[in-house]
Amino acid sequence: MPLLPLIEYADASPDVRAVYDDIMRTRGTDWINNFWKALANDPATLQRIWADAKQVMAPGALDPLVKEMVYVAVSATNGCEYCTYSHTAAARKKGMSDAMLMELLAVVGLANETNRLANGLRFPVDAAFNP
Amino acid sequence: MPLLPLIEYADASPDVRAVYDDIMRTRGTDWINNFWKALANDPATLQRIWADAKQVMAPGALDPLVKEMVYVAVSATNGCEYCTYSHTAAARKKGMSDAMLMELLAVVGLANETNRLANGLRFPVDAAFNP
Amino acid sequence: MPLLPLIEYADASPDVRAVYDDIMRTRGTDWINNFWKALANDPATLQRIWADAKQVMAPGALDPLVKEMVYVAVSATNGCEYCTYSHTAAARKKGMSDAMLMELLAVVGLANETNRLANGLRFPVDAAFNP
Amino acid sequence: MPLLPLIEYADASPDVRAVYDDIMRTRGTDWINNFWKALANDPATLQRIWADAKQVMAPGALDPLVKEMVYVAVSATNGCEYCTYSHTAAARKKGMSDAMLMELLAVVGLANETNRLANGLRFPVDAAFNP
Amino acid sequence: MPLLPLIEYADASPDVRAVYDDIMRTRGTDWINNFWKALANDPATLQRIWADAKQVMAPGALDPLVKEMVYVAVSATNGCEYCTYSHTAAARKKGMSDAMLMELLAVVGLANETNRLANGLRFPVDAAFNP
Amino acid sequence: MPLLPLIEYADASPDVRAVYDDIMRTRGTDWINNFWKALANDPATLQRIWADAKQVMAPGALDPLVKEMVYVAVSATNGCEYCTYSHTAAARKKGMSDAMLMELLAVVGLANETNRLANGLRFPVDAAFNP
Repeated sequence: MPLLPLIEYADASPDVRAVYDDIMRTRGTDWINNFWKALANDPATLQRIWADAKQVMAPGALDPLVKEMVYVAVSATNGCEYCTYSHTAAARKKGMSDAMLMELLAVVGLANETNRLANGLRFPVDAAFNP
Repeated sequence: MPLLPLIEYADASPDVRAVYDDIMRTRGTDWINNFWKALANDPATLQRIWADAKQVMAPGALDPLVKEMVYVAVSATNGCEYCTYSHTAAARKKGMSDAMLMELLAVVGLANETNRLANGLRFPVDAAFNP
Repeated sequence: MPLLPLIEYADASPDVRAVYDDIMRTRGTDWINNFWKALANDPATLQRIWADAKQVMAPGALDPLVKEMVYVAVSATNGCEYCTYSHTAAARKKGMSDAMLMELLAVVGLANETNRLANGLRFPVDAAFNP
Repeated sequence: MPLLPLIEYADASPDVRAVYDDIMRTRGTDWINNFWKALANDPATLQRIWADAKQVMAPGALDPLVKEMVYVAVSATNGCEYCTYSHTAAARKKGMSDAMLMELLAVVGLANETNRLANGLRFPVDAAFNP
Repeated sequence: MPLLPLIEYADASPDVRAVYDDIMRTRGTDWINNFWKALANDPATLQRIWADAKQVMAPGALDPLVKEMVYVAVSATNGCEYCTYSHTAAARKKGMSDAMLMELLAVVGLANETNRLANGLRFPVDAAFNP
Repeated sequence: MPLLPLIEYADASPDVRAVYDDIMRTRGTDWINNFWKALANDPATLQRIWADAKQVMAPGALDPLVKEMVYVAVSATNGCEYCTYSHTAAARKKGMSDAMLMELLAVVGLANETNRLANGLRFPVDAAFNP
């Protein structure tokens, strides 16, 4: 069971419904995933996180698919089950193939490995990398 | 001080030099960064990790710049100072602009935030994400 | 299945029962949660961790509710499912409302986000913060 | 060296200065710490994170001192040096004594310990905690 | 459901079967665990990670049981459920008793606790430890 | 600067001195490292953590060198600089060679890598590992 109830559209207050409507419109979907239904327990948090996500994940200097794959990379590093499933689905919708997912996770694995080799051996940053 | 000495080219055994030569040839540089000089304390580990990095970071289903940015994302998430500096430098060499770095870190930050909202509220994965 | 059996009161040795009795007396409950039943596989560890928890979570310079909320914050950051459920329950018993939980997680999320912005940009600590 | 330059007030664009002014006004200070000067490399990120922080850290169901201590707890858990210094300073300004800091870190330490005992032994969540 | 299908021996390509055969021969078993069946979605990754594991986990300066226990320690620290189960099983097969597992986790717990006390109080490394 | 002052022997209260004396006696040294000097800001925490460390790190089902190496493995995984230096020194004092350190970190690196492959692909635990 979640630690707070999931707020369904039918039971939501007008301000929560307004966010739900914007999520569905922006994504071109007709349903709301559990992440937002849980955040809706605090409408101010729901509005803030949705506004953040809308700004951060929009096309910009990086394209949205790259952003979704970075999201998967962070979620797998942190071991967040929900986020791994939801952002893998989002990345696939934006064009990530199975081969891309496998390569992505190969990089994530290697980075996690070499991060610990560096943290364990404690050599200084090369001057060329830190001018 | 690093926890093991850094092995300079001049002091390296032939098998270590062979890896160093391949690193410089592959990257088109004339120096070796401290990560490899530290790994050289165990030539088998040096060879293995270099072979891994060469395979994983090569062009494939993902392009090398995306891979470097994913590396930065993982390193910032884990708080690895050395890896953040070295892979930010590598990503810039492959074309990452300051604007791309800022957007990358914005995604990394948001993912770390929402990972904890999910881990704290413990709602189930939607069926649509886990068919 | 847990990796070691859970030791029920009926099957416990006298020294384990003594700890179980103290846990129930201290908490005003009549049951033992799985965390302690698992630790009971090593009575010395059970005694030590219980003594630690009793000392650390007691009223002091911080009140017990704040301590429980800090416990939830750490558990959500680390993604520990068991600890998130058990310490959220404990915090609620001590007075945490749903609104307090949502605000707590909002802080946890923001801190996890800005930790990575700092770890990714690597600016120095201001002199005013580190005199 | 930080990975992007720190933007000083004198060199900042009007929209960045507007955020800096609001930070100083809100906090009753006459200087800007490095976190914001680094974020100012992307004014949209600066504005967004500041708006988030202002909303999340404001008095609400939890008081601001508790929120700052939770921030310290997360930052110490993640090993973020900058955030540990800056939010310890902020918590002290709001009334955290040395004794409170020591108790806070004792809880953080214990929670990190028991999180791993739970993650290592993998016992199920008690029904009473997950109704 | 896993995010990519598990590749069974009967459905595997010859290069995947060759790795599966080597895993079973090396371990003296007649089945393949899910980790390898998932990696088999990218045969190059399967071959690389298996070659890495074979080299790293082989007897050397450290004996294989110690290596498996270190693997459990890391997996419990990171909260990786699959890895905790699989490497605890592997360590038991190599001789880890229940008492050894409990002591191992006691060390893991204490290290995670004192890591955060150090990260929270930010005292310098003693000269004697960093000559 | 540390976030709380380091308490030197000359300035310590009798109960702190008693712990310092026991640390030096137990370890056969004539100095106290900074970890304990920082904890001494709260004598109850100093006593508790020292008693914990003395119990957990003592010879038992695992030998003290293995325990120190597990401590290094956790500290490198978490990126704790102080703990990596101090426990590497302790492990060396108990007999860890450079070759053992390199193998230890190779295991730590591999475990951190495969933890993320498992967390990213989300396949179920094999029945054989979780009977």
